[in-house]
Amino acid sequence: MKTIDVCLSPELMHLYPVQDKTVVVVDILRATSCMVTAFAHGAESITPFANLEECRQMRLRGYVTSGERDGKKVEGFDKGNSPFEYMEEQVRGLKIAFTTTNGTQAIEKSKGAKEVIIGAFLNLNAVAKYLLFNENNVLVVCAGWKGKVNLEDTLFAGALVEKLKDYLGPDCDAPLAAQHLYNIAKNDMVSFLNTSSHVRRLNKLNIHDDLKFCVTPDQYEVLPRLKNGVLQLR
Amino acid sequence: MKTIDVCLSPELMHLYPVQDKTVVVVDILRATSCMVTAFAHGAESITPFANLEECRQMRLRGYVTSGERDGKKVEGFDKGNSPFEYMEEQVRGLKIAFTTTNGTQAIEKSKGAKEVIIGAFLNLNAVAKYLLFNENNVLVVCAGWKGKVNLEDTLFAGALVEKLKDYLGPDCDAPLAAQHLYNIAKNDMVSFLNTSSHVRRLNKLNIHDDLKFCVTPDQYEVLPRLKNGVLQLR
Repeated sequence: MKTIDVCLSPELMHLYPVQDKTVVVVDILRATSCMVTAFAHGAESITPFANLEECRQMRLRGYVTSGERDGKKVEGFDKGNSPFEYMEEQVRGLKIAFTTTNGTQAIEKSKGAKEVIIGAFLNLNAVAKYLLFNENNVLVVCAGWKGKVNLEDTLFAGALVEKLKDYLGPDCDAPLAAQHLYNIAKNDMVSFLNTSSHVRRLNKLNIHDDLKFCVTPDQYEVLPRLKNGVLQLR
Repeated sequence: MKTIDVCLSPELMHLYPVQDKTVVVVDILRATSCMVTAFAHGAESITPFANLEECRQMRLRGYVTSGERDGKKVEGFDKGNSPFEYMEEQVRGLKIAFTTTNGTQAIEKSKGAKEVIIGAFLNLNAVAKYLLFNENNVLVVCAGWKGKVNLEDTLFAGALVEKLKDYLGPDCDAPLAAQHLYNIAKNDMVSFLNTSSHVRRLNKLNIHDDLKFCVTPDQYEVLPRLKNGVLQLR
């Protein structure tokens, strides 16, 4: 049986060999939710940057600059980190350079993997289907918050473990913990997450609509993949 | 309100400033369960070692040598890592040098804290009472398994968060996740843990009785504390 494991924080990546694995990077609030939304609305590519200044420089090459630090849009950037900025004509055909506090750092740390794909509740089913028919073992990498474990990324990991449970076995305790948490939360993820630290942080920024949207499963069928450092559709 | 946070793996310790905190180290299967049992039965002191050879040398100084690697008793040591080896006349008045795969490593990493105490289900109530009347914020450090998150230590952390919820607020998402998991598991922790990776590992070693004992709350009232590198009763 193929296996699925969950790395609850990018700071634990060194414990997980990934060279033969498919890594799913998730940052529900809100990097990977934005990326999935952008591709669903026709973005041409997204280049993730861990470093803010490198990202900023991409403007000179015709890229749209996007991202946040500590939940707020970076000064001078074209776009922030709300999925509603990545819809329809706002993104069609665009090349986007993207940097965030956690999500793009997690992508950077995953670069040694056999392949890297982008997951969010918005494309949950597309991710699950892909992993099912793919031959590799799976590691879900939760972006967390500045190295600490967070609930929303853990819930996504748990949703994947639950969906694939008849086909992929848990490799350790983290996937079991994530699965249990998802099963408690699944009927009302917004309420479940209302106590979480990041949602309390976001509520201060007045972006409750983002949360509601970001935990809605299966809005889009897209599956962004990393190829030579650039995210594109398969 | 004082706060309680949970570090789910010793590999995340660098994210948590501890110099002003009371750290509770937990390794349910089985280091801290053994330590609590030993003190309840009259052990004089336990000196934890991260390094196996340093621990072995202590025999020359009149210490009992105890511990395991990968769940098995260390060759040439006096005792292994089952709490049933730390009862009654087997430990009364003894000075013990102790090394384990995870638990004593977690203690080593906690040494910068304002104070370090030892927690297990066996002394849950004693730990909770102490934290309640103590003025410091709290960090529970889960020993995990070779850096990875495990269920049993997470459940203990969750039990503490749950017990103290009216008095100590969660500092981040990890205590919330632990609390949710404890609330699912609390009525039958043995069954809940039967799927966990470490219990599967222990079942192979045929020590199901250890598990059952180690998840029994409030058997002992002792509270081991670290003082100058040595664990003693307060």
